[in-house]
Amino acid sequence: MKKILAPSILSADFANLGRDVLTAIDAGAEYVHIDVMDGMFVPQISFGNPVIKALRPLTDVIFDAHLMIEDPGRYIEDFAKAGADIITVHAEACTHLDRVVHQIKDCGKKAAVAINPATPLSAIEYVLPELDMVLVMTVNPGFGGQKYIPYCGEKVRELRKMITEKNLDVDIQVDGGVKASNIAAIAECGANIFVCGSAVFEGNIEKNVKEILEQMNK
Amino acid sequence: MKKILAPSILSADFANLGRDVLTAIDAGAEYVHIDVMDGMFVPQISFGNPVIKALRPLTDVIFDAHLMIEDPGRYIEDFAKAGADIITVHAEACTHLDRVVHQIKDCGKKAAVAINPATPLSAIEYVLPELDMVLVMTVNPGFGGQKYIPYCGEKVRELRKMITEKNLDVDIQVDGGVKASNIAAIAECGANIFVCGSAVFEGNIEKNVKEILEQMNK
Amino acid sequence: MKKILAPSILSADFANLGRDVLTAIDAGAEYVHIDVMDGMFVPQISFGNPVIKALRPLTDVIFDAHLMIEDPGRYIEDFAKAGADIITVHAEACTHLDRVVHQIKDCGKKAAVAINPATPLSAIEYVLPELDMVLVMTVNPGFGGQKYIPYCGEKVRELRKMITEKNLDVDIQVDGGVKASNIAAIAECGANIFVCGSAVFEGNIEKNVKEILEQMNK
Amino acid sequence: MKKILAPSILSADFANLGRDVLTAIDAGAEYVHIDVMDGMFVPQISFGNPVIKALRPLTDVIFDAHLMIEDPGRYIEDFAKAGADIITVHAEACTHLDRVVHQIKDCGKKAAVAINPATPLSAIEYVLPELDMVLVMTVNPGFGGQKYIPYCGEKVRELRKMITEKNLDVDIQVDGGVKASNIAAIAECGANIFVCGSAVFEGNIEKNVKEILEQMNK
Amino acid sequence: MKKILAPSILSADFANLGRDVLTAIDAGAEYVHIDVMDGMFVPQISFGNPVIKALRPLTDVIFDAHLMIEDPGRYIEDFAKAGADIITVHAEACTHLDRVVHQIKDCGKKAAVAINPATPLSAIEYVLPELDMVLVMTVNPGFGGQKYIPYCGEKVRELRKMITEKNLDVDIQVDGGVKASNIAAIAECGANIFVCGSAVFEGNIEKNVKEILEQMNK
Amino acid sequence: MKKILAPSILSADFANLGRDVLTAIDAGAEYVHIDVMDGMFVPQISFGNPVIKALRPLTDVIFDAHLMIEDPGRYIEDFAKAGADIITVHAEACTHLDRVVHQIKDCGKKAAVAINPATPLSAIEYVLPELDMVLVMTVNPGFGGQKYIPYCGEKVRELRKMITEKNLDVDIQVDGGVKASNIAAIAECGANIFVCGSAVFEGNIEKNVKEILEQMNK
Repeated sequence: MKKILAPSILSADFANLGRDVLTAIDAGAEYVHIDVMDGMFVPQISFGNPVIKALRPLTDVIFDAHLMIEDPGRYIEDFAKAGADIITVHAEACTHLDRVVHQIKDCGKKAAVAINPATPLSAIEYVLPELDMVLVMTVNPGFGGQKYIPYCGEKVRELRKMITEKNLDVDIQVDGGVKASNIAAIAECGANIFVCGSAVFEGNIEKNVKEILEQMNK
Repeated sequence: MKKILAPSILSADFANLGRDVLTAIDAGAEYVHIDVMDGMFVPQISFGNPVIKALRPLTDVIFDAHLMIEDPGRYIEDFAKAGADIITVHAEACTHLDRVVHQIKDCGKKAAVAINPATPLSAIEYVLPELDMVLVMTVNPGFGGQKYIPYCGEKVRELRKMITEKNLDVDIQVDGGVKASNIAAIAECGANIFVCGSAVFEGNIEKNVKEILEQMNK
Repeated sequence: MKKILAPSILSADFANLGRDVLTAIDAGAEYVHIDVMDGMFVPQISFGNPVIKALRPLTDVIFDAHLMIEDPGRYIEDFAKAGADIITVHAEACTHLDRVVHQIKDCGKKAAVAINPATPLSAIEYVLPELDMVLVMTVNPGFGGQKYIPYCGEKVRELRKMITEKNLDVDIQVDGGVKASNIAAIAECGANIFVCGSAVFEGNIEKNVKEILEQMNK
Repeated sequence: MKKILAPSILSADFANLGRDVLTAIDAGAEYVHIDVMDGMFVPQISFGNPVIKALRPLTDVIFDAHLMIEDPGRYIEDFAKAGADIITVHAEACTHLDRVVHQIKDCGKKAAVAINPATPLSAIEYVLPELDMVLVMTVNPGFGGQKYIPYCGEKVRELRKMITEKNLDVDIQVDGGVKASNIAAIAECGANIFVCGSAVFEGNIEKNVKEILEQMNK
Repeated sequence: MKKILAPSILSADFANLGRDVLTAIDAGAEYVHIDVMDGMFVPQISFGNPVIKALRPLTDVIFDAHLMIEDPGRYIEDFAKAGADIITVHAEACTHLDRVVHQIKDCGKKAAVAINPATPLSAIEYVLPELDMVLVMTVNPGFGGQKYIPYCGEKVRELRKMITEKNLDVDIQVDGGVKASNIAAIAECGANIFVCGSAVFEGNIEKNVKEILEQMNK
Repeated sequence: MKKILAPSILSADFANLGRDVLTAIDAGAEYVHIDVMDGMFVPQISFGNPVIKALRPLTDVIFDAHLMIEDPGRYIEDFAKAGADIITVHAEACTHLDRVVHQIKDCGKKAAVAINPATPLSAIEYVLPELDMVLVMTVNPGFGGQKYIPYCGEKVRELRKMITEKNLDVDIQVDGGVKASNIAAIAECGANIFVCGSAVFEGNIEKNVKEILEQMNK
């Protein structure tokens, strides 16, 4: 399964977002992870469509929009139009999860579901064959710069097993506390798309990306 | 009463926000108007503290944070810490409006209350002496680029009269559809702080600001 | 000002709705008042679009949809498509009342705002010139068959005065406990569109309508 | 296990509901499935108690009320009084599911729980012995005329197995996209009560019912 | 108009509530003010019916229950049964204020409406003739021991004028920061029922009550 | 595993709470179980911090605060400061359960999660190693004096097995309908901390406690 780095722009410099994003892409990042937070589902408002619209003309890489928002069905079409390629919604925020997944697909986008650290895999067991990706949160969403929660590795392992047993082709993304020093271990659990925020954007972006990619591909 | 232009960054280029903001300031803008939207109180998520924190080191001008969010009392301290100088909350979003106004003041910041186009002035009549500014919305909040609602001019006029009669020193800000061609008329109603979004950031920022300032100060 | 009877189908026989509605229209009713209740804004679920769609092909009279629902902006387009001619939303249910009024008008429909018995006229004072009708509730919405609240007559009187002073052309509708024996007195207060539920549909519909019309037009 | 057809009146003609319902019953339908929607739990308001009350005097067949509403505990007693014989609540809408199930039983009615397509069976595993029926949604609730979701067949199969293993006597109802052409296959998965909406009420009701019954009983 | 002291048990000793309450009553307090808080309408959970039920057998004085809770209509009957004599609901918490007022009266209890410091008198202007009492909050509700907000005196004055002009017999209660040193001035504004919390229960209860009563009756 | 009795003060005499609590402790109770209810998560408001603060100075025993409230993360710090030693939150009330558990631990308190009768064990399977205790509700929370739900014994058994298999050291508390006559059977299922309300406080507290302890320790 192809491994991919998805730098999370939550940790980039919002005064110079275009520059930071392009630096990460030039250094080898293949996705841009866009952390949309509404201050209701999670305890911070980050940003929404105005940011996606501004970045979209700069690059053709995959925009991976992670909607940490209540009742995301309200805004799927808006995010699709703004330029997201993958749209991820939280299982905990959707009463009608299958409907939202198909709203995303009906917009011609890839559909993913995220689950919080304490959320069991049963939350996605039936809808799994409809998904392009599952995002296993490895911190409690809401802030950048948090520490990886070790017990989530086990969940990634079980999910990979479930995907394999059902003979599906679904990516597993991890988000939270992922960095050069632990990315190889997390990959070993079965994740293949890695969100990195402060690990990419704090310090020298180019150097950070290259180091993470090197560890990721070990 | 001093007239001030407050460019709304909602209409700026989010890939180059620092550049756009500094251009507007260099051209004569004295405030930066920061439109925080949560997708719950208004039908769009714009941005929150990560943007304020990124802009704060670039300039010393007044940051005027307009919280178009539900139950803003939850986040007053965060916005104060991020660097807002004026914090505006919506009367429609606050059950305990006096409490939220004093939360803002207890953070050492200036307190303002915004009212939607259909909201009567009675919503602020008792708390008015505690305020530094009232924001009279001249469009329905949620999006940039909307048309000024003419009936709001009358509300500005009545509010200025109320402020004068109570012998208070309170600024009146207007937000929505304000531009070079109508700013003088709105100022004549009694407003003195003018939020301009697309009128500032669409096209040549420097030229736009100068033209608006010229009309504003007529 | 033209006086109009608007039979409220909440009190009709839902097993034979087409028959009851046509009987009332044939007897002289000019509007059909459609009481949409969601069990959240009011303590009962009545019915929604499936009923409007079923009745629309039967008649060309005005369908006057009274949305006793939370956050009615979500469904304006649906009700317009289903065949409503006038759409009434509650001031208490709209954070952005001016926006919702214009959503209705943008669908090519007439816009009205309803206010509960205890709600002051200040709730609509600014948006009044944008409206085609104001609905002054004369009972607490949620059920048919309630008793007219006498103090609401005074509110109708003040509203008619306000409309006249502003030189506007806005209908005043009353809903709740209106019947043959009090309709003339309510008309005298300044109302001109009269919702009658049980007074029309309990007993002989034709006879009821004729009696109400006779009293209404006195 | 006895197989039963439950025509969903959501697809009937609301101008002539009594006629449509009686036609379906005369043709052999044994239940009337009543789809109550509040526009909050699902994105449409259908109808509520006024409709049940109007139909109740017409027939003695089982009225099976499917409450697609938020916090259904608020209205159990009302629906029981209006004439429902079975009351189904959604697991996703109940914080205290066991309490609501017993509210229904305390009214002397049969209690059922519905689960959305993506909802796992763990949502009902403990309360299962208290239930008369489980409704496995085979579309996302909210509208008539949708297509059956194939992966739900597997869930029906697992649920039947769970019921058998626990030695229980619980009906399995399916709702969504069920029609003459697939009813036999769904029955084979273990469902025994079949909600059909457009398959019954679009076109010739009598002919539709007979055709479905024939397939159902194969 | 008779002046009455209503000690607020929020400031009493909850380990010895019976003792503290009886001490205040013996010293001359005529009401017991019961501050019910739900942690939703106000930012603290205080207590509810278990406390009222425990105190009710101890005394016959008026129990004045101040419901600082969301959607109080849900619990009116419970508070009436627990032994409240006056039930006060917040205007800000009631969409259907007239309905809730009549729910209280239908339980045979006296009905009052409370308004927060920033809430205008228009919130109660129509329902005023139905009320036994209006509670003008003189702090933001949620905690004991806060400082009286001076601008609320003006509101009391305007309310007393409104009551007199409408020829009504309605008590005005004030709650928040009332103590021996300011009670006379507040009475002069037109209030006649005085809630005192820490002023009664901090220190010597008997001495405090006597001192407050003396100042109140000056 | 040590067995402990936790008398629930919901059933004590609130006019003499200190006395009742000390009697239970003197008779051998080792915890005080504090049932905080907000009238939102459960259908009653019981009490909150004012009660804990009043009791804290009277005794050093463990205060075990069971938060039957919506979104408990808002109040963790308040309850910790008021004197709770163990803080229990409901899985059904927490979108970010792992975060709330760590909020509790960051306050230096023991963290527990409660699950309602119908809630599956999957709700806590991932967060289990982070917990000091799991509270298995054996009635639907909201009121004292309810009857034990027999099917919950099976859940306790499965949970104890899960804890043992994962080699963890986690207490299992049961709450609801526990009394002298069934406590031994429940202990046999694997519970070791027993909440008793009316069984302790109705009648002779000392005698009740001794009888329960005797049965518990059999």
